[in-house]
Amino acid sequence: MKKISVLGSTGSIGTNTLEVISRMAAQFVVIGLAAGSNIRLLREQVRRFSPKIVSLKTRAEADRLRSDLGGLPVRVVHGPEGAEEVARFEENDVVVAAITGIEGLRPTIAAVESGVRVALANKETMVVAGAILQARAAASGSEIIPVDSEHSGIFQCLAKARKEDVRRAILTASGGPFFRTPIAEIKDKTVEETLAHPRWKMGRKVTVDSATLMNKGLELIEAHWLFRLEPSQLDILVHPQSIVHSLVEMRDGSTLAQLSVTDMRIPIQYALTYPERLDSGLQPLELGAVGSLEFFEVDEKRYPLIVLARRALEGGKSLPVALNAANEVAVEAFLRRRIKFVDISAVVGEVLARHRMSEVESLGAVFAVDRETRMQSENFLNQRY
Amino acid sequence: MKKISVLGSTGSIGTNTLEVISRMAAQFVVIGLAAGSNIRLLREQVRRFSPKIVSLKTRAEADRLRSDLGGLPVRVVHGPEGAEEVARFEENDVVVAAITGIEGLRPTIAAVESGVRVALANKETMVVAGAILQARAAASGSEIIPVDSEHSGIFQCLAKARKEDVRRAILTASGGPFFRTPIAEIKDKTVEETLAHPRWKMGRKVTVDSATLMNKGLELIEAHWLFRLEPSQLDILVHPQSIVHSLVEMRDGSTLAQLSVTDMRIPIQYALTYPERLDSGLQPLELGAVGSLEFFEVDEKRYPLIVLARRALEGGKSLPVALNAANEVAVEAFLRRRIKFVDISAVVGEVLARHRMSEVESLGAVFAVDRETRMQSENFLNQRY
Repeated sequence: MKKISVLGSTGSIGTNTLEVISRMAAQFVVIGLAAGSNIRLLREQVRRFSPKIVSLKTRAEADRLRSDLGGLPVRVVHGPEGAEEVARFEENDVVVAAITGIEGLRPTIAAVESGVRVALANKETMVVAGAILQARAAASGSEIIPVDSEHSGIFQCLAKARKEDVRRAILTASGGPFFRTPIAEIKDKTVEETLAHPRWKMGRKVTVDSATLMNKGLELIEAHWLFRLEPSQLDILVHPQSIVHSLVEMRDGSTLAQLSVTDMRIPIQYALTYPERLDSGLQPLELGAVGSLEFFEVDEKRYPLIVLARRALEGGKSLPVALNAANEVAVEAFLRRRIKFVDISAVVGEVLARHRMSEVESLGAVFAVDRETRMQSENFLNQRY
Repeated sequence: MKKISVLGSTGSIGTNTLEVISRMAAQFVVIGLAAGSNIRLLREQVRRFSPKIVSLKTRAEADRLRSDLGGLPVRVVHGPEGAEEVARFEENDVVVAAITGIEGLRPTIAAVESGVRVALANKETMVVAGAILQARAAASGSEIIPVDSEHSGIFQCLAKARKEDVRRAILTASGGPFFRTPIAEIKDKTVEETLAHPRWKMGRKVTVDSATLMNKGLELIEAHWLFRLEPSQLDILVHPQSIVHSLVEMRDGSTLAQLSVTDMRIPIQYALTYPERLDSGLQPLELGAVGSLEFFEVDEKRYPLIVLARRALEGGKSLPVALNAANEVAVEAFLRRRIKFVDISAVVGEVLARHRMSEVESLGAVFAVDRETRMQSENFLNQRY
């Protein structure tokens, strides 16, 4: 029986993870949960899974949950330190790191430092602190298994392949809701149109990133650190059916691919059970019914953020941190209807152009660049929009 | 430096194998060649690769080659025993078993018995004598690596997967030249139309089998023995682009697939270099340029032989031997224009319907069933056509 803590338990990945664990009750038990401010859902989760420790964002929320739960034997903590406490909880065998954004950084690092298996769903940690994370994992013996469907696919295709046999890894992108929209019409797309993603049901931030293709940009950087592949070995193909999640091309000309129906529970479960697989009870992929799988090169005019992401990947150092921070601010401004869809890439491009590159060898340096870039992005937004 | 013998060196797989070996001259050297009656090509091959032993079909051919080669230090043998002598040649590290049809059976068994790696391109051996071959391989320690692109794909997707994690293996079929032909028009298709295969350049017999889908029927049976998968775990999808060669569906809902450009040299090379891969110098697969991959369920009305092959797979014992023999006779009759395209399945169906099932636990029993079925097939052809 493996003991699991879920960081970000009330989010999209978190709730799917708890569903997967419910199905595998003979193998896994929930021991800790860290949430944000969704007390109602967290309370339900505590009643259903009886964890030993849970965390919420604020002291007030923690107090309220504690009184709601009456005498249940669960330790309720709060704040960033609370999430880290769940991440380091001594009974953990596996930590699912699914807090979105830069907020997920410290708890994810905490889990990795404690030496357990980390099922990594938080893209940002690898993007802004890939070198730090891998160094801490090497020191603690923590095993980082990707949860993102694309990275899970690469992980599965690589299996025991020797590094020198791998020529290229290709991540697929659905292309988002505007893949077939005339480019001239994209600029005015509304928040509602942007959030109507054709394939995956995800959080709002990620769904916008999927429409701009920034999610693939971040995933390229994540893949670089996860698999130690050079920028030139990483590619993207648009694949509107989202059935092939990724492909690994070997140097002998063979390509291996991972496919499945679009269901996050598959890569989540794999990250928990690896190297074994368990029956998921999910519908199998029936390619005969799907009919056709299409693949397209990425049109950089349609997705200008991918060019910026590539530049950050190749430049390294503080650039990925700045890219991520500027994008978070810009997406938030779009979701609050302060800027138009087309302005997201304009803001990120402008902020990156002004960014002064620096080394980011400590978490402190990462947070400093993150804070500074957010401030610059806000200033730019205030001046210009 | 690994020493390789190629059985069937003047055929389609054989010549491709020699090309692959030329490219990897630092790793591999040709030590033996077994051919049929193509003296001219074999002579060229001997001059180019300087093997220590070669074999031809008849004594007369062997004598002629010997005199052609003058004083070259090469042992020239002949007949079925000659091919077996090459297969058992004591310096062999790897034997590529690529003699087509039932003729390849004894030399392939000989190679397996000698305990070396066998790169298996001869489908029929596994079809008619799968149990025997696997038992001999277990006894000698011989490692059988498939060369067929579909089986190579399954082999690569399986990697180190546990047997219990595999739900299903799917082989793809191009559908052959008549995949989109109205069924009513297929029956009168000529030899020339049948041999105009859209994707793969192969021998005549195999190309006809590809048009009837019997090649996939034989491959299902081969996969059953190679990977020890139950008939219910084996499926076929028509995939006209022939880029995905096979897929392995795991029980957690993930599917792994192997893809490449249609070039036999890729699986041949893999069978030689496994578990390593070497740069092949072949053009990589560019899915963005390919555009679309289509998949269709198999229409059994279009491909009646697939129903017969499934029945043979499920019935086992002597049925696969009879299936293969009846098909070889029928295809030969079609190629000699004795019967029409539609009659191939009629002949095989009729012969199988009359077949009396028996155990085939020895090579002698296999050959007896093979001989008897060929006679019955010829008799039926003589009576009816």
